Amino acid sequence: MSDAQDKLAVVLLSGGLDSATTLALAIDAGYACQAVSFDYGQRHDYELAAAARVAKAMGACEHRIVKLDLSAGAGFGRSALTDESIPVPKDRPMDGAIPPTYVPARNTIFLSLAMACAEVIGAFDIFIGVNAVDYSGYPDCRGEFILAFQTMANLATASTDGSDHFIEIHAPLIDMTKAQIIRTGLALGVDYGLTHSCYDPSEGGLACGRCDSCRLRLAGFAEAGAVDPLPYASR
Amino acid sequence: MSDAQDKLAVVLLSGGLDSATTLALAIDAGYACQAVSFDYGQRHDYELAAAARVAKAMGACEHRIVKLDLSAGAGFGRSALTDESIPVPKDRPMDGAIPPTYVPARNTIFLSLAMACAEVIGAFDIFIGVNAVDYSGYPDCRGEFILAFQTMANLATASTDGSDHFIEIHAPLIDMTKAQIIRTGLALGVDYGLTHSCYDPSEGGLACGRCDSCRLRLAGFAEAGAVDPLPYASR
Repeated sequence: MSDAQDKLAVVLLSGGLDSATTLALAIDAGYACQAVSFDYGQRHDYELAAAARVAKAMGACEHRIVKLDLSAGAGFGRSALTDESIPVPKDRPMDGAIPPTYVPARNTIFLSLAMACAEVIGAFDIFIGVNAVDYSGYPDCRGEFILAFQTMANLATASTDGSDHFIEIHAPLIDMTKAQIIRTGLALGVDYGLTHSCYDPSEGGLACGRCDSCRLRLAGFAEAGAVDPLPYASR
Repeated sequence: MSDAQDKLAVVLLSGGLDSATTLALAIDAGYACQAVSFDYGQRHDYELAAAARVAKAMGACEHRIVKLDLSAGAGFGRSALTDESIPVPKDRPMDGAIPPTYVPARNTIFLSLAMACAEVIGAFDIFIGVNAVDYSGYPDCRGEFILAFQTMANLATASTDGSDHFIEIHAPLIDMTKAQIIRTGLALGVDYGLTHSCYDPSEGGLACGRCDSCRLRLAGFAEAGAVDPLPYASR
């Protein structure tokens, strides 16, 4: 086994376009990747099947699904993604305001659990597909949040305490446009037909084409001059 | 309702001596407190019943138990508290080394979920009973970790984004000895007979008297010149 293959990473994998591209970049950089997804009471839990497809197709060495109920029924909620009584906005102006699909503390919680996964398998590299260009305005998708999380992480665990090891939170998409992300993934052979981005799919899992996530994705494919292989209810 | 009673806080409550004292301090400071405990696959899940007793006796306005499986069976483990195959050390020299009862990323995960609880109820104050004097050597119990977490938290949520609100992570015990903590709690009327500290209780929930947690507690009561109301299998 080469040195490159000895490098272990934990990659957060929602099953969407961004995280699939992030997994491709981590594998391309020589990491053996444990993909981690969250079954958190999300409305769009179709994404978990997409995550499994992507992890398998791209050769993640393991795919873990961590269960954690952040739904309104469990006393969390406060998001259109975790409370069925809050509608997912369709065709809204994306004006920089934080939309109702924001899930309280989601990336902090997911990265914290990724830290635990990493410490358990002896990894020091964590990949997350946040980006701060063509995105929905979530505060926990910005570079300053990722850097502050990394600083905290290196004070938190036994694996870094008194050692030369350093936990690095990789956010390789942070400054990319959606079109750049798609071009990067296509160049690495990502099959975007396996992914799932819609916040509010129909019963059969068909993407709506009108939520922020669908619209950012469709605009990204158009700008990249590529065809989105997914079918949509409306586009 | 007075202004003081309008202040909401989330208090992490394990059911042990430190978190019970922290809850007492938060209530004494005028906060209406949502106590949050974690059912995380811990060996000593008797502590959850203690947390419920403490929350009720002290007048927390709500007690939530968040389920999250960090056990070896769920692919986490790597701790004597979450993996039955790793024994809880008894009568070990407490030399500053991180002991096998360390749970990977535990306080980061718990504080992250407390952030979500706080955002859901509109609280900006989170209390945690970590202390860095008479403690087991866990890296995530130190002041620099708490400060770094607070910095990260204020970059992470919609509730602080573009607002004057500030998330404060209160660690009022951080510089206290165990004896000072006990004296503080006794002065505030904490009934330590309701609490539970042992990492490795017997089937009936009887404290062992020999794990780090029991020994720190017993030494603290002795130094405080007070009597621990709990029965022990050995002391």
